[in-house]
Amino acid sequence: MARRIGKYTLQLPSRPVISGYAAVAGKKEGEGPLGTKFDYVYEDSGAGEKTWEKAESTIHGDAVRRAISKAGLTDEQINVIFAGDLLNQCIGTTFGIRETGIPFAGVYGACSTMALSMAMAAISVDGSVADTAVASTSSHFCSAEKQFRMPLEYGGQRTPTSQWTATASGATVISKGRAINESVETAFIDKIIIGRICDYGIKDANNMGAAMAPAACATISDFLRDTNTVPEDYDLILTGDLGAVGTSLLRELMIKQENIDISKVHKDCGLILFDITKQKDVGAGGSGCGCSGAVLCSEILPKIENGELKKVLFVGTGALMSSVSSLQNESIPAVAHGVLIKGGDAE
Amino acid sequence: MARRIGKYTLQLPSRPVISGYAAVAGKKEGEGPLGTKFDYVYEDSGAGEKTWEKAESTIHGDAVRRAISKAGLTDEQINVIFAGDLLNQCIGTTFGIRETGIPFAGVYGACSTMALSMAMAAISVDGSVADTAVASTSSHFCSAEKQFRMPLEYGGQRTPTSQWTATASGATVISKGRAINESVETAFIDKIIIGRICDYGIKDANNMGAAMAPAACATISDFLRDTNTVPEDYDLILTGDLGAVGTSLLRELMIKQENIDISKVHKDCGLILFDITKQKDVGAGGSGCGCSGAVLCSEILPKIENGELKKVLFVGTGALMSSVSSLQNESIPAVAHGVLIKGGDAE
Repeated sequence: MARRIGKYTLQLPSRPVISGYAAVAGKKEGEGPLGTKFDYVYEDSGAGEKTWEKAESTIHGDAVRRAISKAGLTDEQINVIFAGDLLNQCIGTTFGIRETGIPFAGVYGACSTMALSMAMAAISVDGSVADTAVASTSSHFCSAEKQFRMPLEYGGQRTPTSQWTATASGATVISKGRAINESVETAFIDKIIIGRICDYGIKDANNMGAAMAPAACATISDFLRDTNTVPEDYDLILTGDLGAVGTSLLRELMIKQENIDISKVHKDCGLILFDITKQKDVGAGGSGCGCSGAVLCSEILPKIENGELKKVLFVGTGALMSSVSSLQNESIPAVAHGVLIKGGDAE
Repeated sequence: MARRIGKYTLQLPSRPVISGYAAVAGKKEGEGPLGTKFDYVYEDSGAGEKTWEKAESTIHGDAVRRAISKAGLTDEQINVIFAGDLLNQCIGTTFGIRETGIPFAGVYGACSTMALSMAMAAISVDGSVADTAVASTSSHFCSAEKQFRMPLEYGGQRTPTSQWTATASGATVISKGRAINESVETAFIDKIIIGRICDYGIKDANNMGAAMAPAACATISDFLRDTNTVPEDYDLILTGDLGAVGTSLLRELMIKQENIDISKVHKDCGLILFDITKQKDVGAGGSGCGCSGAVLCSEILPKIENGELKKVLFVGTGALMSSVSSLQNESIPAVAHGVLIKGGDAE
């Protein structure tokens, strides 16, 4: 049973373990720093499908299948899947997993979906709702550009603050943990925090990092306050995905508003997926649900398993606008959800 | 802690109670059979806003505020809100609740959202993730028509199988229950079931009832099998929202596939919200997340509280397509989630 710590944070005493995970990505992502670490790189962003949306579904389904298989399980053994994506009505997810027969609880958190779905899966396992749950998400550059910005064929200029939606999917399998005094051999989820909506009035849909930084700031500072810890207590505070602009803004906000310097332990998935000094066309870095999903499941979880990282606070950030709300001159509300992932022998 | 019964159903031994609820609706819904039972009827479907989307947000926020206030609580006392809607990126929800400061976990279940959000809130309360959680949803005829079908100004003909998206919102407050041998004075959530995606290949976006009936059939029969019960064990099996076409199909499927006759105890929210013999322009009945949300929170929960109904299996049904997937000639996958709501002195 979960135990509330402070105002917003929840401790999961049963320590749900991450028993499997997988990341698949597109060609451009495969050419980035994590290229060799993905379970599979699609050389064709169309994934052999006729439309970008179907390609995203295929990629999403692939990541889920690989994660379940790597956990040594079958679809039949999964009690529930928490999943979502950026597409209207989350069709990247629903069409991707419809053949599995796994009970499906759809979540919507924009680019925070990986953290939100993992939090939901973890509390389900902790509360005995599931013995095993899957948490997954996806995004696709082409389906996202078409939906949120301009048709690709238009060839519009991109602003330097804009981020590059990752063509990628990440999936984790979360299973019943071991009692607190037993040894746990894989990464496990120790705490979660569900974020509040923050809206600082940013209206530029090409500057999502700025819109999401205040939400990340709120969730990280809530978490540190609730747990009475400081950034140095963590090996990594990993946001996903603020990019270069949002990263500077987050660090500045944390200092100015909270007097907390996270710069020594903070990294952002958008700047891990792509090397923006080499892959210049990605602008301020990667974004999209699939970005943090794929970075977590290719770069971070293996490092937790091999002991290189012991305590990682993963904070997914999402911008909760639509193209309609932007056209109606609305600002961009944002939310950030956090999951504290620990290695086997961390306290 | 939840206890699994059979393959898909979960018993919530802590019996989370529905400590507050509210339903608000538009003018046309106010002219229907439930007109006097809503907490508020908006005579202006625009709710004083400049756009249909903003109107939906206003209505959604209103239902949430009323439900919290009727539970005798303030926003500060709510640990988490599970909410979603039909609009792209769920903006009906996010813009409606962004001022509350309540931690927000977005869900996506199309028209099954009321059942999904209540199931999530109930398991959160049962697993001590929240002392009090809100579950809410909304829909708006004009924002939905514009997004999924045709601009209203086009004045297109509607097919007889089409359903009328309700302009409405429903919200429930779900709180820590009492131990099994103590008296519970309000309605409580006894069991939940998360549905599997079903796709029978229906492609007609004007016949959602047919697309969703197989999912309702799967969830209801899974639930009856898991709990070893028959339809007559319930005062009401309430689907939301199949309309007239989907209702006939569901009853027929239940008999042909499962040899179970639910007709004596089955009703559908889409046929409760509107009287289709009098309000002929609504076609096959009401639909949209707000339909089942508002019917549950105006007509059903009061009857559970006053003892008229003791055991209600509420099964929300959702069609998981988007206008893009329909244009790409995809079929319509559907899902149905169930919540067993009981009255204070039901076993």
